[in-house]
Amino acid sequence: MSDPNKHESFMQQALALAKRAWGHTHPNPMVGAVIVEDGVVVAEGWHVKDGEAHAERAALSALGRAPKAGATLYVTLEPCSTPGRTGACCDAIIAAGIKHVVVGATDPNPDHAGKGFAVLREAGVEVVTGVLEEVCTDLNLIFNHWITTGHPLLAAKTAVSIDGRIATRTGDSKWITNEQSRADVHHWRRLFPAIAVGAMTVLQDNPRLTARAADGTEWCPRRFVFDGLLRSVVDRYMPAVYTDEFKDRTVVVTTPHGGLGYVRKLRDLGIEVWVIDSDTQQVAFEDFKQRCAAEKITGVYVEGGARLIGEMLRTRELDYLFNYRAPVLMADDRARAGFVGLRTEKLAHALRLRDVKHAAFGDDQLMRGAVVYPERVQVDEALIMR
Amino acid sequence: MSDPNKHESFMQQALALAKRAWGHTHPNPMVGAVIVEDGVVVAEGWHVKDGEAHAERAALSALGRAPKAGATLYVTLEPCSTPGRTGACCDAIIAAGIKHVVVGATDPNPDHAGKGFAVLREAGVEVVTGVLEEVCTDLNLIFNHWITTGHPLLAAKTAVSIDGRIATRTGDSKWITNEQSRADVHHWRRLFPAIAVGAMTVLQDNPRLTARAADGTEWCPRRFVFDGLLRSVVDRYMPAVYTDEFKDRTVVVTTPHGGLGYVRKLRDLGIEVWVIDSDTQQVAFEDFKQRCAAEKITGVYVEGGARLIGEMLRTRELDYLFNYRAPVLMADDRARAGFVGLRTEKLAHALRLRDVKHAAFGDDQLMRGAVVYPERVQVDEALIMR
Repeated sequence: MSDPNKHESFMQQALALAKRAWGHTHPNPMVGAVIVEDGVVVAEGWHVKDGEAHAERAALSALGRAPKAGATLYVTLEPCSTPGRTGACCDAIIAAGIKHVVVGATDPNPDHAGKGFAVLREAGVEVVTGVLEEVCTDLNLIFNHWITTGHPLLAAKTAVSIDGRIATRTGDSKWITNEQSRADVHHWRRLFPAIAVGAMTVLQDNPRLTARAADGTEWCPRRFVFDGLLRSVVDRYMPAVYTDEFKDRTVVVTTPHGGLGYVRKLRDLGIEVWVIDSDTQQVAFEDFKQRCAAEKITGVYVEGGARLIGEMLRTRELDYLFNYRAPVLMADDRARAGFVGLRTEKLAHALRLRDVKHAAFGDDQLMRGAVVYPERVQVDEALIMR
Repeated sequence: MSDPNKHESFMQQALALAKRAWGHTHPNPMVGAVIVEDGVVVAEGWHVKDGEAHAERAALSALGRAPKAGATLYVTLEPCSTPGRTGACCDAIIAAGIKHVVVGATDPNPDHAGKGFAVLREAGVEVVTGVLEEVCTDLNLIFNHWITTGHPLLAAKTAVSIDGRIATRTGDSKWITNEQSRADVHHWRRLFPAIAVGAMTVLQDNPRLTARAADGTEWCPRRFVFDGLLRSVVDRYMPAVYTDEFKDRTVVVTTPHGGLGYVRKLRDLGIEVWVIDSDTQQVAFEDFKQRCAAEKITGVYVEGGARLIGEMLRTRELDYLFNYRAPVLMADDRARAGFVGLRTEKLAHALRLRDVKHAAFGDDQLMRGAVVYPERVQVDEALIMR
């Protein structure tokens, strides 16, 4: 039980198992577990999807017999101590006679955090906590937010040049980042239960908004189109998200200012429309989040445009940012900025990211993290549409 | 001679030795060498400064005896084959009876590249090339440019937010990047033989432009102030670079439009002034580079402002970029852009970096690389001062 390198190596295996369910477990977290006897993994388990066994039980089932006396269970997330639909994992561990447990992340729910450890220890189980904790916690960045706030994680993705531009002055943006970065975007699209764009992005780029894997398979998350005035509903030429084979996954989010005729038109096409009350022509994100919560949509991956992301920053509703940047330099004042909408006079009032993670994709870099707002965000009033 | 991991480990030691002369070897490269007998390093050498022994000879001297029959010399750069002031290192290696040589980078000078290997092989020496080649080449990014072009490497440093801004709309910029990033800047200041800023930066920030090490020692490179109109020469309040204890390291680079009275004033203070002919109010960087070359100044680290760097981009004279970015977001259209001066209509005409390197400093990221210009850079004429 005492070699930290061994612990990390087995925890890595448990992490890899957890990720087999990448995007499949919502609203639950991804969790992986291995049972080790005499230094060898003898059983693997992971949480496959909501309603199915938790990782610990899955590993115990896979073992198919009583574990040996010295067996150790490695699990990426603190075992649950309160019986849900599948029964408390702590009870199952104790009943199986496991005496050594090594855990990655602590339960993010402050009401539960550490209770699993206490239950196990009371039953005489030796518990090691915090192995690869940061990685194990980061694995469930959507769930962690959901379970602590009751709201979906609103995460924006931007792809910018060194000088923070998403397109040239003429709108040329294909492509700033490289193929590896774009493949990573598809990986995150596969994770998030929903994806969102603004109406202008739909009109200009006509995107499919699906997650395309290297093996050619395509998966479609819930697709939100934010369109306060329903400008994306055009007679001559309907965007792909309203007509393709995944159109039952598309939801148009609008305001009462959108016009009933357009709403009817979309619904006639089989497109779901959420009309959310608003004083302005913009969707009230807080209400949108509540509606998502009611439908157990735990996270939304917002792909732009800059205006939609700017509105989310202004209203302090953007929770997370993925920012790719490529070694491209426009050095042009009129190139399109990736982020707009605030008046930031002092650095102390600038937004910052916390729990920052870096990654490299060839020559590109990804920086991601949770958005931290200053006490008061100064809004550029000139940019608010009323 | 055959274990690549061993090779890399010994080459790492040679690299560490080379770096002991960080900033001391101009106009020569940094080079390190170790001699290994029976798997153990028995002698170390590095090039200390111009005029002193090359690394290979230094290692042979340090050994102080004939190397054993199976000895291997590891050296970060291809040994020289043409006798300079200190004699060709290939000859010294052969004379010492060394039969195994492992090399990192190839001589960047195309007229010499590979000649050292050929000379050694002809004399029956086994030569392994390209061990940690990329790192060994990158170590001498200033020298490599100098020796192949005959011009100094003009390298700009910028520190930006995620959205590519160097300051808020009110000019607040202290600090966007963190302490570790700023320490890294001082590390590069120590490497470059010269540093440069524009007149406005001198007036606004009154910087010392010295390299301050963690141990408190301060070193002053040659300090260039680009000031086409000599606006930084003010009666009431002279900037630090014209009055401090390092003022003999300051050179003001101006045009004939600067005014003879101001030139005299600076020279009276003991400040060197380079008057470089120009049609515009801006210094002609090409002529500046030639003057640097004549004085064997192999590299200039340009710290801004954005206008000076923009002029260098416009004239295609900026060779290299260091770009730090911090997890800060201004989302303000009027925040100060780090790069200006071009009209980039198509992505195909955007500038790009090659030989890109990444580094992380806490939550900050560094991206650096050589600037690659498209066939034609489109200049924003509105920004040229005449």
